[in-house]
Amino acid sequence: MTANVALPPATPVAEIPALASAARNTVSEHQRHPTFSPSALLRAVATQLEGARANLVAAAQQETSLPEARLQGELTRTTRQLVAFAQLAESGLESDAIIDLADPAAEPPRPDQRRLAVPIGPVAVFAASNFPFAFSVAGGDTAAAWAAGCPVLLKAHAAHTRTSVLTATAVAQGLADAGAPKAWFTMVYGASPEVGQALVNADSVEAVAFTGSFGAGTAIARAAAARPRPIPAFCEMGSTNPVVITPASAQNNGKAIAAGLATSITGSVGQLCTKPGLILLVDDEAGRQLVAELSGRIAENAPATMLYRDIRDRFVSAVIEAADDPRVDALVAHPSASASGQASAALLATATKELAPGDVLLEEIFGPASLVIWAEDESDLVHSVEKLPGTLTATLHASPADPLAGPLLHALSARAGRIVYNGYPTGVTVGHATVHGGPFPATTAAAHTSVGMTAIRRFQRPLGYQDVPDELLPPALRDANPLGLQRRVDGAITAASVTRVR
Amino acid sequence: MTANVALPPATPVAEIPALASAARNTVSEHQRHPTFSPSALLRAVATQLEGARANLVAAAQQETSLPEARLQGELTRTTRQLVAFAQLAESGLESDAIIDLADPAAEPPRPDQRRLAVPIGPVAVFAASNFPFAFSVAGGDTAAAWAAGCPVLLKAHAAHTRTSVLTATAVAQGLADAGAPKAWFTMVYGASPEVGQALVNADSVEAVAFTGSFGAGTAIARAAAARPRPIPAFCEMGSTNPVVITPASAQNNGKAIAAGLATSITGSVGQLCTKPGLILLVDDEAGRQLVAELSGRIAENAPATMLYRDIRDRFVSAVIEAADDPRVDALVAHPSASASGQASAALLATATKELAPGDVLLEEIFGPASLVIWAEDESDLVHSVEKLPGTLTATLHASPADPLAGPLLHALSARAGRIVYNGYPTGVTVGHATVHGGPFPATTAAAHTSVGMTAIRRFQRPLGYQDVPDELLPPALRDANPLGLQRRVDGAITAASVTRVR
Repeated sequence: MTANVALPPATPVAEIPALASAARNTVSEHQRHPTFSPSALLRAVATQLEGARANLVAAAQQETSLPEARLQGELTRTTRQLVAFAQLAESGLESDAIIDLADPAAEPPRPDQRRLAVPIGPVAVFAASNFPFAFSVAGGDTAAAWAAGCPVLLKAHAAHTRTSVLTATAVAQGLADAGAPKAWFTMVYGASPEVGQALVNADSVEAVAFTGSFGAGTAIARAAAARPRPIPAFCEMGSTNPVVITPASAQNNGKAIAAGLATSITGSVGQLCTKPGLILLVDDEAGRQLVAELSGRIAENAPATMLYRDIRDRFVSAVIEAADDPRVDALVAHPSASASGQASAALLATATKELAPGDVLLEEIFGPASLVIWAEDESDLVHSVEKLPGTLTATLHASPADPLAGPLLHALSARAGRIVYNGYPTGVTVGHATVHGGPFPATTAAAHTSVGMTAIRRFQRPLGYQDVPDELLPPALRDANPLGLQRRVDGAITAASVTRVR
Repeated sequence: MTANVALPPATPVAEIPALASAARNTVSEHQRHPTFSPSALLRAVATQLEGARANLVAAAQQETSLPEARLQGELTRTTRQLVAFAQLAESGLESDAIIDLADPAAEPPRPDQRRLAVPIGPVAVFAASNFPFAFSVAGGDTAAAWAAGCPVLLKAHAAHTRTSVLTATAVAQGLADAGAPKAWFTMVYGASPEVGQALVNADSVEAVAFTGSFGAGTAIARAAAARPRPIPAFCEMGSTNPVVITPASAQNNGKAIAAGLATSITGSVGQLCTKPGLILLVDDEAGRQLVAELSGRIAENAPATMLYRDIRDRFVSAVIEAADDPRVDALVAHPSASASGQASAALLATATKELAPGDVLLEEIFGPASLVIWAEDESDLVHSVEKLPGTLTATLHASPADPLAGPLLHALSARAGRIVYNGYPTGVTVGHATVHGGPFPATTAAAHTSVGMTAIRRFQRPLGYQDVPDELLPPALRDANPLGLQRRVDGAITAASVTRVR
């Protein structure tokens, strides 16, 4: 049924600055004369996506080879995320309203100072290949930008253009339902790098959000910094997601950990940015049993179709290259045994003493593969963590009483955005406390998350008001606190009104 | 008495990576086995600076030509700022503690997720020329980095090396008093750009804070983004600080506004990043009277010595160049009439119709000069604001009942970090609500402030914990809330303890 969707031509590069400029004019108009609320827009789009669910999932299934259950779940996550951001916008929880009342008796006298998070302006979002809903057209970046009060220019991913077009149609209907101007969301197309470059370089764009490969992400971040007027680039570039298992945990819980790891490595054909790519444990009897169990499960895993042919080919090459490394023991590696377009899961192994910081073996292999790293003993296990690059997640299998738990948690904390304890890193829960970010090379902006409610902060800036009279202030900062916000007043959190000091 | 301070040689560029690496090792050590508290360090340094006050002020007076009263006040601001950051660190107000309790019944089940702001690591700070205390060795950037739990590598400004050495001596004593390791603060010297470049490029440095010129700031930001491992650069680069006066305000309050502007333009010999550099008003009778009054006051202002000869020479050249522009009317300009090393205040004028966005006349002249921009009428006044570049502050003189107040406030808000109402932009109050930042070219990071309590956020990143047991969590995130923090729990602010869901 989706074959009827007409595929759009690539957006002419020369038109992109004008599209961005139209988005900027819309912000300016909206701030002067608001015609819609961000939360109404978010809810309207969620409703439209639910209405189009059958068509959307069918199109995505055809384009991505991801199973229906996964796509149904992903679309649910996407609409819930839109609603969660609508609630966030309504709550004012991220309005960062701060008031310092005047103190005319101070030396020098202190004025009345207030500040509020305001929208940064038009945001360019690059859709990811591996989440046709949750990190695509109406995904987390778009939702966060809208919640902040910013319009979005979205670069569709060429791997699921039909799904993108269908989603954009639902978005356009949602915009109309909410009374938002059309330019609040603009989709651009094109497989050539020039389209993305034109978006990053468009003068009216104020920030970039990207999820994808290290190469593309770093190129975008450098381009954003090199503009005549530099802008921030929030690029989430995947990760190795180390899993560290203490000898005691391998001993007490090895079989269950092996089963959990196998599922986490092979789920979604390994095409998740939180797939566990490195497994660190001590080369002892329990460790070897755990890895034998894991090898068996990886070997049994049926070959599966990856998102698109290029990704599969890059995965196969990466596995062959790593397996050929003289330092690597290929525990399970049949990269060429699977049918065309499919990939077989792989498990490789090496020893910590073989690895240097920045080692090529410590780079992500995107797909169902993981590298076991054998430590000689407990001390070597702790030290080996210090060689690891920045990562979105780091997982620790230990008991709190384990004397290794503290040192390992400490060492992992210095490198990761999220610590997972006795669990598995895949599966990102969208909440207030979510951190889906981490030190470079996991992202280009470790101070931010690209998933969860605080992802809105990427698209806000503070605006200060000094001695501005109540009637000229935005409602969030007025004396009476008409929005009922929790505000920071003279350094204390309160929802009370304030009495202006004159 | 300060002539005895031995001037240090330039720090060898080759040694800088090792200095940064030592700072990083100190962070790692401190996180494992804390030996001091950031707030104790901040208070100890404040105490040491107060003890050294006489020597510090004498040295700064000799090196900067700034008057003693100003330097006494600046040192007071500096020590108060250190204490304010100590209080902030103690309060946990910027710990950004967020907890989402588990929901095992959800589909899929939601884990226990918590997050906390953690220190980013070693921070490189570039001291400014124009504030030998408040934006120098133990100034706001250093205080904010320490409060965040980060060590500092400080590039001393060559214009006040003796003052820097004396301050660093007090800092070293403060570190010792608080039990902090020496590597928590390292000062590097050198007038050549290579010293600063080496600091920005040192692998162990995690962020850069800079206050100074547009040229140096943008060079630093581009270098930070071009590193193999890019880091954020928070550069505050000065600003034009437009002041917009409505016809009604010029009519009702012209004389007082002229007096206030004259003081704000000439204070500290115009060497403030918030000096009003552009004055926009309608070319009517009241406007002309206001400017005549202002011209008289500027002309009467006595020539004064600038921070150093280079700054004075650049100021004189910039005034001559602007006054020679055929579009400019030199109302007061005697750049060469003053004694060597001194500068005479200047007032220039042009018309809005002469200006294009990005016009050279809209660039900052650092020193006691300002440009009057005549608008034809009220509508032209509003539109002229849209040509202005990003700025730290924007000032509006109006009454709330003035129909121009809303549109002007709106137009200024899109360009400024701080709106000042019926006041003057010079004088930055250090508080929770302070915004000393703004859109490029005012800064390279409009989402942040370089002054005030939230300046700490530049040096923090979020770290997430998923299902981590209480005993392995940092105290700020433990169930019992032992630090008594205001935390965001399931989306609501509360200081209550939490009950973990299993």
